[in-house]
Order: sequence, then C-alpha cells, then structure tokens
Amino acid sequence: MSIVLIGSGNVATHIGVTFAQAGEKVAQVYSRNLAHAHLLADRIGAEPIADWNKISTVEKLYLISVTDASIHKVVEQMPMVNGVVAHTAASVPMEVLSRFPHRGVFYPFQTFTKEKELSFKEVPLLLEANSKATLELLHSLAVKISDKVQQSDESARKRLHIAAVFACNFVNHLYTLADELLMENGLSFEILEPLIRETTEKALSLKPKSAQTGPASRLDFNVMNLHLDNLPDGSLEHQLYQLLSQSIMQKVKSG
Amino acid sequence: MSIVLIGSGNVATHIGVTFAQAGEKVAQVYSRNLAHAHLLADRIGAEPIADWNKISTVEKLYLISVTDASIHKVVEQMPMVNGVVAHTAASVPMEVLSRFPHRGVFYPFQTFTKEKELSFKEVPLLLEANSKATLELLHSLAVKISDKVQQSDESARKRLHIAAVFACNFVNHLYTLADELLMENGLSFEILEPLIRETTEKALSLKPKSAQTGPASRLDFNVMNLHLDNLPDGSLEHQLYQLLSQSIMQKVKSG
Repeated sequence: MSIVLIGSGNVATHIGVTFAQAGEKVAQVYSRNLAHAHLLADRIGAEPIADWNKISTVEKLYLISVTDASIHKVVEQMPMVNGVVAHTAASVPMEVLSRFPHRGVFYPFQTFTKEKELSFKEVPLLLEANSKATLELLHSLAVKISDKVQQSDESARKRLHIAAVFACNFVNHLYTLADELLMENGLSFEILEPLIRETTEKALSLKPKSAQTGPASRLDFNVMNLHLDNLPDGSLEHQLYQLLSQSIMQKVKSG
Repeated sequence: MSIVLIGSGNVATHIGVTFAQAGEKVAQVYSRNLAHAHLLADRIGAEPIADWNKISTVEKLYLISVTDASIHKVVEQMPMVNGVVAHTAASVPMEVLSRFPHRGVFYPFQTFTKEKELSFKEVPLLLEANSKATLELLHSLAVKISDKVQQSDESARKRLHIAAVFACNFVNHLYTLADELLMENGLSFEILEPLIRETTEKALSLKPKSAQTGPASRLDFNVMNLHLDNLPDGSLEHQLYQLLSQSIMQKVKSG
C-alpha cells in the first residue's frame, strides 16, 4: 500500500519528492488540472490523475495538500476510502475530514517555494489524528522524512501558524520594503546581506528580545523623526515605521 | 601616528578590537566613564582616558563612536586636533564636525552587540570626507578591516539606514513578537529556527518580493480573519497583523 497525493502545489511537490527520495512509494498524484498532476507525478514515478473515478481506494494514506479554501471541495468530491486521510493545512480543523473514518493532520512547519530546494529533515512535522492507530501510521511515515516530528493539536497549530506569519511572511515583506527603499535610490539589496544574516544569527543565538537594536530600542526620537520625514506621509511604509517603532518602545518600557 | 577612539559602546568596541587585530595601533580610548574606557582599552593595549585634557592631539584619526545625541557634546568639548575627525553615525551629517579642518564619516553598516562576535571583513564600510586627502586616509584604514568599503554621501547613508531599520530592527522585533506568541502557549522559539533560516536564505537567493508566501500574499481572508480573531482586539500585535497584511496585499495588487 502506498500514498496518494491530492494537490500538486508547493507543499505537495516538496512532500512528494521527499517521500520518493526516502523510498516511500507515491502511487498517484491528483490535480484538477492533469498537466499539473503530470508535472509532479512524472518526477516521482506516480500516476497522474484528474478524475476522482480513477483514484485508487485501497492505499494507506491520502494526503490533501491544496489551498485551505479548496479542502472542503476535495472532501465532498473524493470517493470514500478506508485508508488515512490527512491534510497539510495549519489553520483548518481536522474535523473538516469527518466523512472519513481515519483522519488526521500532517502539517509541515516551513515556507515552501517550488524553485527552492530545502532539507526536509529539518522541517518540523506537526501531527494530529483521530485515533492512536492513525497517529501511529502518520508518525511512521513522518519520521522517514523529518527528524522533527511532534504531536500538535489544532490550537497549538493555529498559534504556531500566527507566529510563523510574523517570523516568516511579515519578515520577508519587510525585506521587500527595504529592497524597494534601496532601489528608489539606485542602491542594491546585496548591501543588506551581511546585516540580514547577522540579524538572523543574533536572534537565533541570543533570543530576539535581547538582540534588539536601532533607534526605537534606544528611544532615539531624533532619528525616528528624521526617518519618518523621509517616508511619504500617509504611505503604508510611514504607518509601518510608526507602528513597529511604537511596538518596540512598548517592549523597552515593559522591560 | 595612530587612532583615538571616542566612545566605548558596541560600535566602538567592535571597531577597536578589529583595528587592533589588523595590527593598527589604537593609542587611546576616551569615555566619560573611566571604567568603561578601561574595559575596551585594556583589551586592545590602548590608554583609557576620561579627561579631554589627556587626549593626544597629534594622532591621525579620531573616531567618534557615541550615541547620535552625544556627538554635539563631544564636538564642543574635544580639543582642536589636526588629524582627521570622523564619526560612525548613519543619520548625522558630516558637517556636525565643521569645527575640524579634516572631517569625515566612517559608517559600518551592520548591527552590533557587544557579546556577539562577527566577521568585520563582511561589514560594508561607508565613507564620506570633506577632501580627497581625508577620504584617502579613511579609505586606507577602512580596507584594513573590511572587504566592502565604499563612498556614500549623507542622503544615501540616510536611505540605507532606513532600509536597515526595516530589514534588521523591525525584523528582529517581529521575531520577538513571534517568540512571545509561542511562549504564551508553552511553545519554544526553537521550533521557528528552520523557518527563520529558510526565510532568510530564500529572500537572499530569490529576491524577497518573489519569495513572499502566506495568507496575505494569496489574499486568503479566511485565514487572516482567523488569525486576527486570535490576537487581542486593539493590541499592537493585532494592528501590526492588519497593517503588514494590507501592505503585502498592496504589493500583490500592484504586481
């Protein structure tokens, strides 16, 4: 018995390729778009399908890795199966899968981009299941691809996801804003590289709160005002500079 | 002729230690607080002083590395010297040093914490001077400690500093908020480490704009609202989540 992947996006691609590399058979890749199913399936020796009637119903794991909003539709349309059905979404309750007797969540806590390879061994895999046996099956597969497998219920997963939005999505957006500020002045993003690397290393080795530097952390209103004068009034950059500085100062004051 | 360091904080310490390691003699370290001057001077074989009358007036470089607000006071009190006087501040004009015939700026574009060593060779050093000869002196010293020396006028320096506040100070603060969100739920910051490392690597290798992921970038209002419901109404975290998501969506819409 093997694995059926439902979805062919970033997460499905990374998981599918990693399972195949670990010697775990992926039987089929389902996508509404057959060409998309092909792209992933052909890489990992699986059968590409775009028709629910073609799904093999006797496999051990059906991993649903589609956008959060599409999970409901997959659950409605997918044939009944006796294997474990799990989704990979942070913010969707396991009970969205209540149609299926064996269900769970298989959430990789990482940011995925198709073009960028990464070492899956380092990716925390957060598991939830509706029974001990189902958890054991998910666990036995998870440890084949990750060294960081742990159990996590819906509420912890949601909290982790919010933290990840701050530490990853919002951080990346600040890099984008910095890049644009430099581009407007003919400067290149590369000059930031040593600073970005050091900021990351410092936060990870010292804990971020004790690594905080900059005008807001030293309550330097002269510099903050000088910077605000240089960001267009009313722009989101101006508002973000103010709000982020205010938030840093609040932490300084509260110790 | 050697170097006199004025100040004994994070930046002065990193520069002083690096000059000493590069075989460049630091003659004196001035601080208002003699004990502070000692801490740095003793590490690098310099004379600690806290009295302006004791400053040697025949050295080649006087490097003022104090808080932005204290530079004026140093300029007022410091005896006249014939060597080059430069400060290390991003947001202070060179002309604050107009009392001195040979003046400049020697700005290391990096975040410094006393407890954290770093490789100074990678730190961009941005130089400005009021004459070609002064620029040459600053340049000859800068290349001894950094591989990334470049000229930069006040306006470029200011722009770089604003970009650095976004890409370093604000980023670190987002890590702090993520850490607190996890702590409130008994979760540890370490679980974020692979995600933080990957976010950094992706932004540096792909350019941040094309590396953007997360609910705002896919206009997933369900997830954004779920997250907002979980952040206390009116809190700075709630406001930041909204404003940062809005800013990400603006970039998505503008392409």
